[in-house]
Amino acid sequence: MKVEIWSDVMCPFCYIGKRHFEKAMEALPFQDEIEVEWKSFQLNPDYENVDHEDLYAYLARSKGMSRQQAQQMTLQVADMAKNAGLSIDFSTNIPANSFNAHRLIHFAADKGLQDQAEEALFKAHFVEARDVANPEELLSIAKELGLEVEAVKKMLDSDEFAEAVRYDVYESQQLGIRGVPYFVLDRKYGISGAQPVETFVEAITKGYKEWKESKKVGPLEDLGTAGKNACDDTGCEI
Amino acid sequence: MKVEIWSDVMCPFCYIGKRHFEKAMEALPFQDEIEVEWKSFQLNPDYENVDHEDLYAYLARSKGMSRQQAQQMTLQVADMAKNAGLSIDFSTNIPANSFNAHRLIHFAADKGLQDQAEEALFKAHFVEARDVANPEELLSIAKELGLEVEAVKKMLDSDEFAEAVRYDVYESQQLGIRGVPYFVLDRKYGISGAQPVETFVEAITKGYKEWKESKKVGPLEDLGTAGKNACDDTGCEI
Repeated sequence: MKVEIWSDVMCPFCYIGKRHFEKAMEALPFQDEIEVEWKSFQLNPDYENVDHEDLYAYLARSKGMSRQQAQQMTLQVADMAKNAGLSIDFSTNIPANSFNAHRLIHFAADKGLQDQAEEALFKAHFVEARDVANPEELLSIAKELGLEVEAVKKMLDSDEFAEAVRYDVYESQQLGIRGVPYFVLDRKYGISGAQPVETFVEAITKGYKEWKESKKVGPLEDLGTAGKNACDDTGCEI
Repeated sequence: MKVEIWSDVMCPFCYIGKRHFEKAMEALPFQDEIEVEWKSFQLNPDYENVDHEDLYAYLARSKGMSRQQAQQMTLQVADMAKNAGLSIDFSTNIPANSFNAHRLIHFAADKGLQDQAEEALFKAHFVEARDVANPEELLSIAKELGLEVEAVKKMLDSDEFAEAVRYDVYESQQLGIRGVPYFVLDRKYGISGAQPVETFVEAITKGYKEWKESKKVGPLEDLGTAGKNACDDTGCEI
């Protein structure tokens, strides 16, 4: 069964949700039959960090609150991240436009490294305090992933995968997705947010069972005249 | 929508059915959304033409009839073939085990030439009076298809694609297919035999409409707590 995950590199619940989802996957006896695909989403597609503001400055400005209130706001998320095994120090995060990061994820996907790229970019932004809108940082992340740096440079300098990112966003709109992370099971069921591991286990199991049932081979409904103008091991029936 | 066609190179109704199916496809406004895959089937998997018998001799022997009766039997099929635009002179056909021909079709499929290979092998057997169990003939057909002859020779000398042929046969059994040609629409509907063009048009249209409906994007059924622990363009909801 295909699981598509719409996500933004800038979204802390997407990173936490990734961990919850991974834990759930480990618990599933049919994990080998699940194919995961990460899809691009942008929470703030027009953003450019021209003033080199930090996360608290960004939050305070965009939410009309004090820097202290912004700081306070992130504490609970940091706690939740910690419970998921992620050490996020929001004070170091560099707000950034994620468009090129998403293009890099698409590039990596073509080389069979999508999940690794998704993980590396979350880590770069949330844990390593790197600016994932900076082309030099993206190149160094690409190198760490084992990607061909020259090819990535050429891609970043071009429009390549821009359409792929936009198409992911377009599809999310078609599916009615307004927030991320959003997990889509077999284009049938949706799970919104970094839900608890058990919620993922239950939901994926439900989706998987129905998908498995729908994939059952035969019996086919015959639409022709069975046996007429056909050959079998006894000969050809006219 | 996927259309899988189980077929044997030795089966005249499969060749005729291919023409009817192609004519039907031309009439379908949604033909670009139909993906065709040819699947291997063997009417007589144990056959070896050790005595170099012709088709009439084979039919007479296997059906316990006279050579004349066998000849008579093919007349109606030859007529039906003619109506489909195929000049088959059954008197020239060389009965053959089709196993390696099917392996060649699988090889060609990997190079994007499956339909061409299927067609070339039907033509070789039914129209050009070639022995499609003869490796030299298979190599010359491969060459005509533009395949790399050395690679095909290596494949024929090995076990390559033997498993693929057997798996096709296994799947046909799973689907309850006893004769060919057999057309499977989206693993849901089956059409048996070289049916008239209109039957294909109607059946494929029916299958396509239901497939199209089932592929409709959204709305998804939400299995999580919508909006909780997720980020949208207004921020992250905890």
